[in-house]
Amino acid sequence: MSLVLIIPDRKLEDLQQRLQQALPDTPIEIWPDIVQPDDVEFAVVWKQPPGSLTSLPNLKAIQCFGAGVDAIIADPTLPALPIARIVDPTLTQTMVRYLDGVISHYRLRLDLFAQQQQQLLWRPKSPRRLTHICLLGLGELGAAAASHFAAQGYQVSGWARTAKQLDAVSCYHGVDGLAAAVAPADVVICLLPLTMATESLLDSAFFQQLKHGAIFVNVARGAIVDDAALLAALDSGQLQAACLDVFRQEPLPAEHPFWRHPAILITPHVSAVTNVSTVVEQIADNYRRSQRGARLLNLVDVIKGY
Amino acid sequence: MSLVLIIPDRKLEDLQQRLQQALPDTPIEIWPDIVQPDDVEFAVVWKQPPGSLTSLPNLKAIQCFGAGVDAIIADPTLPALPIARIVDPTLTQTMVRYLDGVISHYRLRLDLFAQQQQQLLWRPKSPRRLTHICLLGLGELGAAAASHFAAQGYQVSGWARTAKQLDAVSCYHGVDGLAAAVAPADVVICLLPLTMATESLLDSAFFQQLKHGAIFVNVARGAIVDDAALLAALDSGQLQAACLDVFRQEPLPAEHPFWRHPAILITPHVSAVTNVSTVVEQIADNYRRSQRGARLLNLVDVIKGY
Repeated sequence: MSLVLIIPDRKLEDLQQRLQQALPDTPIEIWPDIVQPDDVEFAVVWKQPPGSLTSLPNLKAIQCFGAGVDAIIADPTLPALPIARIVDPTLTQTMVRYLDGVISHYRLRLDLFAQQQQQLLWRPKSPRRLTHICLLGLGELGAAAASHFAAQGYQVSGWARTAKQLDAVSCYHGVDGLAAAVAPADVVICLLPLTMATESLLDSAFFQQLKHGAIFVNVARGAIVDDAALLAALDSGQLQAACLDVFRQEPLPAEHPFWRHPAILITPHVSAVTNVSTVVEQIADNYRRSQRGARLLNLVDVIKGY
Repeated sequence: MSLVLIIPDRKLEDLQQRLQQALPDTPIEIWPDIVQPDDVEFAVVWKQPPGSLTSLPNLKAIQCFGAGVDAIIADPTLPALPIARIVDPTLTQTMVRYLDGVISHYRLRLDLFAQQQQQLLWRPKSPRRLTHICLLGLGELGAAAASHFAAQGYQVSGWARTAKQLDAVSCYHGVDGLAAAVAPADVVICLLPLTMATESLLDSAFFQQLKHGAIFVNVARGAIVDDAALLAALDSGQLQAACLDVFRQEPLPAEHPFWRHPAILITPHVSAVTNVSTVVEQIADNYRRSQRGARLLNLVDVIKGY
């Protein structure tokens, strides 16, 4: 019985070696050069090409290599098997530190001062008053970020599909709760999963519900945002600035207007990258569970999409 | 008996009004329009013109309007009177939050990603490993910053003129201690007072003592740094980047090469601005102490310069 890595366009020697150490008796295959397709019972997957999973007749479980499973579920040939995802505390901490740094960036007006520097302009200004932060999405990452900012003394609201409860966070849910969650926020952070329900959810009607001059941060998935609506909100001043780490197409194409917009800060999908050292253990653990017929850790609900 | 504000080039209505509320029976004069120079016993001062203090024959005490008294002491006509300075906990917190934001900026490579954005370049990179921070100066601000970063899990070293002890901070002192304090640091932050001993202290020999590729932050006074040495250290790669909030001449002249250096982030002296609401109480308190002949709070040692 073997495990396969179906992770195109990535060097896998390090991951393979570490997994081999964790699972010394298990052959680790690497797609597309699978020697014994019949032996593969467990697949570690990231943006798999359609057909790659159906070529494995004895596959029992799918382990997503990251936190978001939208690219796996989008595969029209996806077999009906249990799918687990990575819930990586390191990744959560990385994301929270990214968001904390982005909030500081805007609070200290480093965006403004960088522009002034290019214009040789000396115009001191006190920090932006950012007192209320709204988190869209209260899963592992959103809840951690919400609690972090609440502990820092910010007022925090949050929004999720279903009702949640978090200390010191005003939680809203459902389509009706969205406007109330974002209305008081100086900064709105998107950490929603990309699902049928959230695709293009953040459209021009959404941006109109924000406080005038709010700052928008997207660290979830690009397709949750209507790009044209975001640009229009920035151009009208309804949004003051946007920090975008994720995009509908990545790498962001050179001709995309986001690149050149003065109120947009682009980071190349770095807010939370899965850390090999910490996820190897979770993959090995789920492989062993799958072998003995136990329930996988961090199972995904394919209908909900996360 | 009256109090005078000698703070050129600044609107003083708000400060005057608040001080009047705190000291309802005391006339508050504003230089240069002093009605009764003989009545003035207490001067609140910031960058006073030479001669302004000697024109007040009955002056008993000088209250600096900020934390750094170098501009007061530089006055060749300075009378031999007690000088107090502001030690503002709000200012300390503002400074620590500024430094925290700057560290995050570099940790997250927002400097690099902003450059890449201008070049339409998509090159993900994991955060910079900044694990050791060195504070030059361990006064109110330096000690608070050192303790903050130690509490965040950074290794922290510090350097001061005289021996200091701080929990979780490796403290060095004296000319001989400087190299040892900075050698292991990924980020070196200058929070020294500007004195005869620190003027141009950070010269090319100093920058050679830093770890190759270190980041330098100056939030103290511009004249502590040898500008040419700093530029040379950046150009050779000995320094990776510099964040400068203070300059020999402010506003920084348009022709100064700092403005256009790609590895320098300029902020226009905003890291810690004295907050009127919190200092009014300290000024009023010291005025009352001066009136009853008591020792002022936060007295400055003019010989040491802080």
